[in-house]
Amino acid sequence: MNSETICALATAPGGALGIIRISGPQTLEILSHVFSKDLAHIEPNTVHYGHIVEYDAVSQHQNIIDEVLVTIFRTPHSYTGEDSAEISCHGSRYILNKVLELLIAHGCRMANPGEYTQRAFLNGKMDLSQAEAVADLIASGNKAAHQIAMSQLRGNFSSELSRLREQLLKLTSLLELELDFSDHEDLEFADRSELLELANKINSRITTLTHSFETGQALKNGIPVALAGRTNVGKSTLLNKLLRDDRAIVSSVHGTTRDTIEDTIDIQGITFRFIDTAGIRQATDEVEQIGINRTYAAIDKARIVLWITDTVPTAEDIQEILEHCKDKSLIIIRNKIDVASTPITSSPSDSRLKDIPTVEISAKQGTNIDKLERAIFESANIPELSEQDIIVTSARQYQSLVSAHDNLSRVLSGLESGLSGDLVSEDLRLVLDDLADITGQGRILTNEVLGNIFTRFCVGK
Amino acid sequence: MNSETICALATAPGGALGIIRISGPQTLEILSHVFSKDLAHIEPNTVHYGHIVEYDAVSQHQNIIDEVLVTIFRTPHSYTGEDSAEISCHGSRYILNKVLELLIAHGCRMANPGEYTQRAFLNGKMDLSQAEAVADLIASGNKAAHQIAMSQLRGNFSSELSRLREQLLKLTSLLELELDFSDHEDLEFADRSELLELANKINSRITTLTHSFETGQALKNGIPVALAGRTNVGKSTLLNKLLRDDRAIVSSVHGTTRDTIEDTIDIQGITFRFIDTAGIRQATDEVEQIGINRTYAAIDKARIVLWITDTVPTAEDIQEILEHCKDKSLIIIRNKIDVASTPITSSPSDSRLKDIPTVEISAKQGTNIDKLERAIFESANIPELSEQDIIVTSARQYQSLVSAHDNLSRVLSGLESGLSGDLVSEDLRLVLDDLADITGQGRILTNEVLGNIFTRFCVGK
Repeated sequence: MNSETICALATAPGGALGIIRISGPQTLEILSHVFSKDLAHIEPNTVHYGHIVEYDAVSQHQNIIDEVLVTIFRTPHSYTGEDSAEISCHGSRYILNKVLELLIAHGCRMANPGEYTQRAFLNGKMDLSQAEAVADLIASGNKAAHQIAMSQLRGNFSSELSRLREQLLKLTSLLELELDFSDHEDLEFADRSELLELANKINSRITTLTHSFETGQALKNGIPVALAGRTNVGKSTLLNKLLRDDRAIVSSVHGTTRDTIEDTIDIQGITFRFIDTAGIRQATDEVEQIGINRTYAAIDKARIVLWITDTVPTAEDIQEILEHCKDKSLIIIRNKIDVASTPITSSPSDSRLKDIPTVEISAKQGTNIDKLERAIFESANIPELSEQDIIVTSARQYQSLVSAHDNLSRVLSGLESGLSGDLVSEDLRLVLDDLADITGQGRILTNEVLGNIFTRFCVGK
Repeated sequence: MNSETICALATAPGGALGIIRISGPQTLEILSHVFSKDLAHIEPNTVHYGHIVEYDAVSQHQNIIDEVLVTIFRTPHSYTGEDSAEISCHGSRYILNKVLELLIAHGCRMANPGEYTQRAFLNGKMDLSQAEAVADLIASGNKAAHQIAMSQLRGNFSSELSRLREQLLKLTSLLELELDFSDHEDLEFADRSELLELANKINSRITTLTHSFETGQALKNGIPVALAGRTNVGKSTLLNKLLRDDRAIVSSVHGTTRDTIEDTIDIQGITFRFIDTAGIRQATDEVEQIGINRTYAAIDKARIVLWITDTVPTAEDIQEILEHCKDKSLIIIRNKIDVASTPITSSPSDSRLKDIPTVEISAKQGTNIDKLERAIFESANIPELSEQDIIVTSARQYQSLVSAHDNLSRVLSGLESGLSGDLVSEDLRLVLDDLADITGQGRILTNEVLGNIFTRFCVGK
């Protein structure tokens, strides 16, 4: 258990309320110097109204810094597992600074990023995969990202890893059995096929988890979409239409955060992120080629490309766009169907386009925007997630899985090639270590490893 | 008591935690639909760990939206005086939106700005002057503004008003006594001088309160300071030096808010706000006059002008600056004392400058910046505040005081000119009404009046 008592602001500055968190063995003692109410004999999990006060040596008075609510948690029944408190203050910059200053003057130190969660991990309240899920949960901006983080926080990934660990241990004990009977040549063959079957089963599961990382990244960061097309085909009108439809709830709740979520839309709980569209939008007739180059730069970063046009594309146009969208999901959008002169369905279609989804819209009138959203969602090709699904979103966890996969591949080829059991066992232990790295359980972790994990957290969590 | 149950996010979005507040008679019932724990028979002022859940009609499962702490307050022992709850969620945009959405689906409505405090007022938990102090307290960014708001929240202004009210009622009853004896002509004279003395005493107190508004505005919004001078005298170097010295604590606590507090410094608990300095800073040699015009525009808005120079000012320079700073506090700054060639103390001084504070500094080396800060603080001429001091900061309260002052002036001249007691009484009643407007007690307030007061609050308070 850590001997230092830490404090930090756990909420963003600027609201009506600000919550300051304290955790560590001196929590109650430090509070006794700054809080007007005696908390020594109170029940845990209770809330207390009182004042944060500062003794002024000059006037010999206690100045009231704020009227607050203090909530007390006692070890081990707290987030960190330590004695903890939360001070609910008025959200004034001056007050929050002052309260932190007072706490520090009486023995607290400012918490490092993620230090509360790090302590929760060190005190056995959660494993490392759950700790990382806390950061993901806080960052989650859509239903899918939220669901993945919540599943991981609830321990689904941890359970899966512990099942894999059991199977790996079973494999190890079978190998030991093989070693014990290694002088009976006839026995070995039968065991090896059973061992191989089990190892393949484990490998298949690890492969699935490893592959989930790509989906995890897309869901966590938003799926990048490029909006391409010549100037004046209605790109910005369409973008505004797509973006505006999604604003209502978010802006009613969040007010000022509108800017930071600009240019993303949520479709069926998945975030789509329009990349570099400002560049595309700025393209003008004057320097058409600049616009086109910018479009291609955006396409390179995209997973989905919306190619918007208001004319029958020439064979050269089609050639060009297909060349740049080789490994992308392409959707062709025929805009301006509200304008009579626009040649749409009657136009002869290039055979190269026949398998590419096409949506006819009027960006101006808002016609078929819903159809387009469905097409975008389908292009993303996201598997339907259930609450139990495990999707890996952490690069650290992904690396451990890749390493586990590599080591397990050596186990497999060792088993196949008749490598001796003790050598195979060595690789098996490496696989076990890789999986243990993910949860951190039973592993000695350096401060550097912990630091890398928790620095991406915000201060106060 | 209000029949609607309201909800809102009480913290700024973007932190590790987000607090959602619920208040109103249905608080516990609405929570029972979304919170995993039965709260019907729990003790008030207790904290409960559990899940916010959403019933999914398709899967017939309860989806976990978040692991939260719920704190329960029971009427009348809550901020609003109503049954209330606070849900401490993970600070994810998705989660906070989702929880609010769920609460609304089960019967809450989104709170209006300041509606919690408005309910606290309507339920007799505080008067209007205290309610306004809540908004000031949240907005307070320095020690002085904080102290004023805290004093008002603690009821010091309310007590003062109630003392004034008692004296006014005494005046009224003395006037009635006069009326009863109005056929005894000799009695009237003696009474009137006593009445006049009392009225003058009240008037003097109201005048002091009225005059405090200017100080209140300066302390609340920061005292505007202009930094003037020709180009290349070191204005931006000095500004950076002044600003940087004040950044350390604030930015360590607040991280991202740095931008919003740019260009203000706190000296001894008072905020000084550098106005329009961007304009001054952009002035170039090329179009010197533009820079000068911008400087004068900044000077017009300032209360304190820092005139920075690195040469002996010409008689024309002095003429020009004095003309533009007639009703300002001017400080002359002689910069670049680290450069040997700069003529400073040895230069012949213009007699017009002899009463103007002068500070010799090196902005580059940071020399005498502390002296300059003391000079700025002294120029502000802010009376030293004690915890009990009442400073009016609300324009609404100020208007009521001005009106009270006007009506009391009529009372005074009525008393002096021997106006009949019943006419003087009428004006006295107006004074009483004006003072009652400030606290709102005993007054019927229209929704419009309340709306004007509480719309300047943030949502969630």
